[in-house]
Amino acid sequence: MPGDRVVIVGAGFGGLAAARALKDQDVDVLVVDRNNFHTFQPLLYQVATAGLDPDDIAYNVRAILRRQANAGFRMATVLGVDWRSQRLLVDRGDPIDFDVLVIAAGATTDSFGVPGVDEHAFALKTLADSALLRSHLLSQFERADTDARAIDAGALTFAIVGGGPTGVELSGALSELVRHVLARDFPRLDVDRTRIVLIEATDHLLGAFSPQSQRHARKTLVSRGVEVLLETTVEQVTPDAVQLPGGRTLPACTVVWAAGVRAAPLAGALGLEQTRGGRVVVDADLRVPGRPEVFVIGDMAGAPAPGGGLQPQLAPVAIQQARHVAAQIDAVRRGSPTAPFEYHDPGTMATIGRNAAVAELGRFRFRGFLAWVMWLVLHLVQLIGFRNRASVLLDWAWNYVTYDRSARIIEMELLERRFPSALR
Amino acid sequence: MPGDRVVIVGAGFGGLAAARALKDQDVDVLVVDRNNFHTFQPLLYQVATAGLDPDDIAYNVRAILRRQANAGFRMATVLGVDWRSQRLLVDRGDPIDFDVLVIAAGATTDSFGVPGVDEHAFALKTLADSALLRSHLLSQFERADTDARAIDAGALTFAIVGGGPTGVELSGALSELVRHVLARDFPRLDVDRTRIVLIEATDHLLGAFSPQSQRHARKTLVSRGVEVLLETTVEQVTPDAVQLPGGRTLPACTVVWAAGVRAAPLAGALGLEQTRGGRVVVDADLRVPGRPEVFVIGDMAGAPAPGGGLQPQLAPVAIQQARHVAAQIDAVRRGSPTAPFEYHDPGTMATIGRNAAVAELGRFRFRGFLAWVMWLVLHLVQLIGFRNRASVLLDWAWNYVTYDRSARIIEMELLERRFPSALR
Repeated sequence: MPGDRVVIVGAGFGGLAAARALKDQDVDVLVVDRNNFHTFQPLLYQVATAGLDPDDIAYNVRAILRRQANAGFRMATVLGVDWRSQRLLVDRGDPIDFDVLVIAAGATTDSFGVPGVDEHAFALKTLADSALLRSHLLSQFERADTDARAIDAGALTFAIVGGGPTGVELSGALSELVRHVLARDFPRLDVDRTRIVLIEATDHLLGAFSPQSQRHARKTLVSRGVEVLLETTVEQVTPDAVQLPGGRTLPACTVVWAAGVRAAPLAGALGLEQTRGGRVVVDADLRVPGRPEVFVIGDMAGAPAPGGGLQPQLAPVAIQQARHVAAQIDAVRRGSPTAPFEYHDPGTMATIGRNAAVAELGRFRFRGFLAWVMWLVLHLVQLIGFRNRASVLLDWAWNYVTYDRSARIIEMELLERRFPSALR
Repeated sequence: MPGDRVVIVGAGFGGLAAARALKDQDVDVLVVDRNNFHTFQPLLYQVATAGLDPDDIAYNVRAILRRQANAGFRMATVLGVDWRSQRLLVDRGDPIDFDVLVIAAGATTDSFGVPGVDEHAFALKTLADSALLRSHLLSQFERADTDARAIDAGALTFAIVGGGPTGVELSGALSELVRHVLARDFPRLDVDRTRIVLIEATDHLLGAFSPQSQRHARKTLVSRGVEVLLETTVEQVTPDAVQLPGGRTLPACTVVWAAGVRAAPLAGALGLEQTRGGRVVVDADLRVPGRPEVFVIGDMAGAPAPGGGLQPQLAPVAIQQARHVAAQIDAVRRGSPTAPFEYHDPGTMATIGRNAAVAELGRFRFRGFLAWVMWLVLHLVQLIGFRNRASVLLDWAWNYVTYDRSARIIEMELLERRFPSALR
């Protein structure tokens, strides 16, 4: 088995960590992704709110793999697997043969079947999502500046559905963009009429955190002008409103759906057993039952046990699983038994805005300025590449000192494609 | 006439300089542009070749005008003018009334009627153009890496039509991207088979420069692997080739049209007399004959004399004209006579690549490293906004020291829109 070909589907945190962890093994590694870049997903919300440029959080996969002699890259979308001949079916070029397969294609937004979400709500999972949301929300201010009646119709109401880290971070950042930046950009517009409404189905924000952190996040958001609607479900999304229970309608031309994720569609195309959220069922060692050469990690990996897998959208889960899988590949190739995966929780954090965040590391809880600085440093360190790091640091320093934001760019081409009559 | 409303169409170099020059006059200034950002056009070629990020050379117009109390902004596309009621007809919102009108809508690519240019060639006039070209050219390398036969079909042949500054700068930058960056990104691909072909109709490059500078530019490009075809016209552009005289065909999946510009389409919608290249005829004081309240500057302004106006695509022309117009508006409002515009040529420069440029300032000519440093400093100083300047400086320093490039990002959404089957 020397020279075995390990194919990794997905260049997210999990896929790239798996490639790196296989560096010293006598295997050929091929990473396959539909994009030629890695997206640093935790900062997508900052792109959407004009705090960072899209290119700051994207990094070319070939540049990442350049120094690893046994790794290559192929840009393609994986459509399915021919299990008999052990090859991936892709949307362009020849099929891709593998000896070992690591599936790390991540997650996509889950509308939970709520009508109108797929058509009218904005997602925040890809770089294109964030650029589209940025263009759309800025264009709503241009529209309201031209026609004040549009405000009554919801032009300046931003409904964010889902009170997890994405929803909390996005509403906090949006509040700052509006109060510190757009209020000065639009002197003739009554920017105070902007409404940011965070809608959460349970009775608390940030489900994975302690009650103290949850209350702190909520209080901080409210003090910064965000309306937090707890125990509220969304019944329907229309082009310019959110339908709430009891016949209530919230006029809102911008609805962001951050309520949950499910495994990427590829999971369904594999013909493997799936669990909650479309995840692929794996054994304790992260192998697919009955397919010893196939591993699944990150948001696509599900456990047969109740719960169906670890909490999604956490980079540490994907990265630890990636390293575990690399070790198991080594074990299998040496004829040793595999070991079950164990997750070591390094803690979690979420930023609420300027000088405000919550962080929980084991028994230690932080909030406010200290947690915020920890958040900044951690994310800066995790960003790949010196240039991206320096560029993000520059943007953050500039934003912090001047209360300004970087490129507030409306890309009409993006908008016109999705909403042909959005600005009329 | 205190409180007169001066409306400026276009937020390019000319429009913004006019707004700024009207700062101390007792007028209301409104800048109208289809985009909410100013594009620093001289660096578009660096975005197209992954040297800079799109947002580095775009700057929000409201941020620029923020500190000017008498200036505002409206995002809209101007469709025409109702001369009788003195109002602009726009694509959204109410028409815009003016007392004085300054037209500075710039230029667009001129295909000179060559078949296939509009459909198949890439332009390099807008931020969207540069992002599209970047995605397209990078995707051609991904395609060739998957299927070497695509190279014979022109996947790695880049035909650049037009030997002016844009064509010279783009071919030089593309050569560096290929040799220094992509050769390392694609270790399995025979990157040496890349062809960069610069096609020029006359017998020299850089028409506005001295013969010495022209020869230097050509020699430098050739030494860096660019094929320079002089005295060659293009008869037709197809999706994967350029037709040259004598039945010669150059297979090329990427054709960039940098052969010339004409006034923006708005010029034709005004119902005013036009001259060569669609420019609006103006008197010596830059007013439209018979319309004393209307001024035209920059690439849209044409003279009735032979030649039809100053050389297009030069920022100093637009900026000097803008200042002149501001002074004439002041004069007219005081009842003084207007003065004719005189252009003071500050010199011109073009970069050919790393450590190489030509610059001509009056009797002084520079080339090589010194001219290149002058070019860098001048463009850095002209960039608007500290953040953009710092970001560009960071990118340039990074590129220079590491021979690396910044985000080599393929935006599939852009590509798929224009070329639904480009990558298959």
